Amino acid sequence: MAVSPERRPTLAVVGATGSVGGVLLQILSQHADIWGEIRLVASARSAGRKLTVRGEETEVVALTESVFDGVDVAMFDVPDEVAAQWAPIAASKGAVVVDNSAAFRLDDDVPLVVPEVNPHAARVRPRGIVANPNCTTLSMIVAIGALHAEFGLRELVVSSYQAVSGAGRAGVETLRAQLSLVAGTELGTSPGDLRRAVGDATGPFPEPVALNVVPWAGSLREDGWSSEEMKVRDESRKILGLPELPVAVTCVRVPVVTTHSLTVHARFQSEVTVGRAREILATAPGVVLFDDPAAGEFPTPADVVGTDPTWVGRVRRSLDDPSGLELFVCGDNLRKGAALNTAQIAELIAAEFTA
Amino acid sequence: MAVSPERRPTLAVVGATGSVGGVLLQILSQHADIWGEIRLVASARSAGRKLTVRGEETEVVALTESVFDGVDVAMFDVPDEVAAQWAPIAASKGAVVVDNSAAFRLDDDVPLVVPEVNPHAARVRPRGIVANPNCTTLSMIVAIGALHAEFGLRELVVSSYQAVSGAGRAGVETLRAQLSLVAGTELGTSPGDLRRAVGDATGPFPEPVALNVVPWAGSLREDGWSSEEMKVRDESRKILGLPELPVAVTCVRVPVVTTHSLTVHARFQSEVTVGRAREILATAPGVVLFDDPAAGEFPTPADVVGTDPTWVGRVRRSLDDPSGLELFVCGDNLRKGAALNTAQIAELIAAEFTA
Repeated sequence: MAVSPERRPTLAVVGATGSVGGVLLQILSQHADIWGEIRLVASARSAGRKLTVRGEETEVVALTESVFDGVDVAMFDVPDEVAAQWAPIAASKGAVVVDNSAAFRLDDDVPLVVPEVNPHAARVRPRGIVANPNCTTLSMIVAIGALHAEFGLRELVVSSYQAVSGAGRAGVETLRAQLSLVAGTELGTSPGDLRRAVGDATGPFPEPVALNVVPWAGSLREDGWSSEEMKVRDESRKILGLPELPVAVTCVRVPVVTTHSLTVHARFQSEVTVGRAREILATAPGVVLFDDPAAGEFPTPADVVGTDPTWVGRVRRSLDDPSGLELFVCGDNLRKGAALNTAQIAELIAAEFTA
Repeated sequence: MAVSPERRPTLAVVGATGSVGGVLLQILSQHADIWGEIRLVASARSAGRKLTVRGEETEVVALTESVFDGVDVAMFDVPDEVAAQWAPIAASKGAVVVDNSAAFRLDDDVPLVVPEVNPHAARVRPRGIVANPNCTTLSMIVAIGALHAEFGLRELVVSSYQAVSGAGRAGVETLRAQLSLVAGTELGTSPGDLRRAVGDATGPFPEPVALNVVPWAGSLREDGWSSEEMKVRDESRKILGLPELPVAVTCVRVPVVTTHSLTVHARFQSEVTVGRAREILATAPGVVLFDDPAAGEFPTPADVVGTDPTWVGRVRRSLDDPSGLELFVCGDNLRKGAALNTAQIAELIAAEFTA
């Protein structure tokens, strides 16, 4: 996208010092011709730190009303309660806010946007806010959206294999510390041995995550559901424009640093063929089809981490349902799952400045 | 079960020196009053080794026809092709064979038995062979069978989180070696870094398994399915006596030493309530309901390893289907998933000797 220099919009990055903020700055540096001034904003505690963006050292400023003076677009990557308070302030000062928290995702007056799936939605934003989906939803939705456009989605059953960086820097530090503890030991072979060795050092997780899988992410909602599971269901429905879509989800944390994986059982309105599904996935923007088990090809987090697309493999037609497909999907939860989609939405809005 | 000393049947354990064999010997030692003589049998390479069972050192003998002389029950835990050759020989010599390979599981003349679910099936064995299911099927089927008995199962969608010991001792050694390699490093954060660090040391797995999840187990079957996925579908149908049951499965290996986990989306003939499902699971033999997310209670491999039951948590009714349940299930793949179920089947048969 070419933006004439005199029209380049001013960008604020709120939450520049976090995990996702770090990846955002990389992406902004790669897409260096989009923005005019870039202001880096964080909590008062982080103000004064210097971060590099587009090759220039830039001082982080504290979050106050005046940081939004003259800002055209503000990306927010902050906790829900901070976004709930500050996104409307930024919007009232004329900035279009692209928010990566859960605060506004289900607000009827806030579009929830994945540029490959529903870019049109970003143009209608009564509150001046556009929401970025949850990382788990984003790790699969580009591939699902492409299949939905062809076959018409009727049902989703999803299980996640979520990386620890979805819980922020503390998640990564916790896994690294636990790995150092278990390496070279026989831990993981008798009941409770890991729990005893790890003690209270479970970080943001309710159980040890090294040599373990933990069927919990987020907070407790009604009837035993986790907030993460509800997000995947509710956000998928909103993005796809299918408010009644049956979606069953179980979210599980695994000892992977970055890249969420999901198994997907998808049922469609019409009969599907693997051949046509593969054609769609092979040509869909933002999707890589990596699916040749005979040659050992299927996506894993180790291959996908650090890359932009949604990777899809293990494409099979359900054996007992001609309208069903089974998939295994991987997406980098810090890139497409957070920073990249935020940047893509912001670029859709930046394009309006030159339209 | 009390077996009078003079009627105690003679047992042969074929494959006594493997991972599962080791757990079998522990279980035989705990259930010490069932069997008369116990013969330990392995390949010629392992013959002469001494193993302890019921507190006594016992010499391992090489597999030959004569080892089955006078044997009442023979447990086999050997590769498929060894079982295919030797189980009929043992049966022809009068032993009832309990086989843990895949060689006979789908044979119409061989019952596939889970004592909590279909014990009656073990009595009809035209070939003198009873098959023990695959470890992944066994890690969930006791819980599913209990729910099926009440609600009538209509469909299963299953995703696995399979431990490396499902691939034998080599699987465990591979994960341990990779963990020592990655601990204290920043590996797992850039594309391909794990693959390069691990090199060819992927053991029985197609990709690095430390800090990764690998959507593959077993060998390639038609249309992109893995043998492990087909086993879960075909064996579940046979055990439950539902030959037409729709079953969708994706099998994924995770960096856990022992204990397979599965997410299960189950649809039933009639409406279900979580309350009644919990009552069934709380009272079903061989099942532990561990399900109080508010108190941080849900099963994980770290808690379940080394225990006998099938642990069930995260019990929720599907939000969009009153006849659906979501579950997270853990089972020790070496105990109930292999050795314990084999021992339980053998004990059903031993009971016939005193009937």
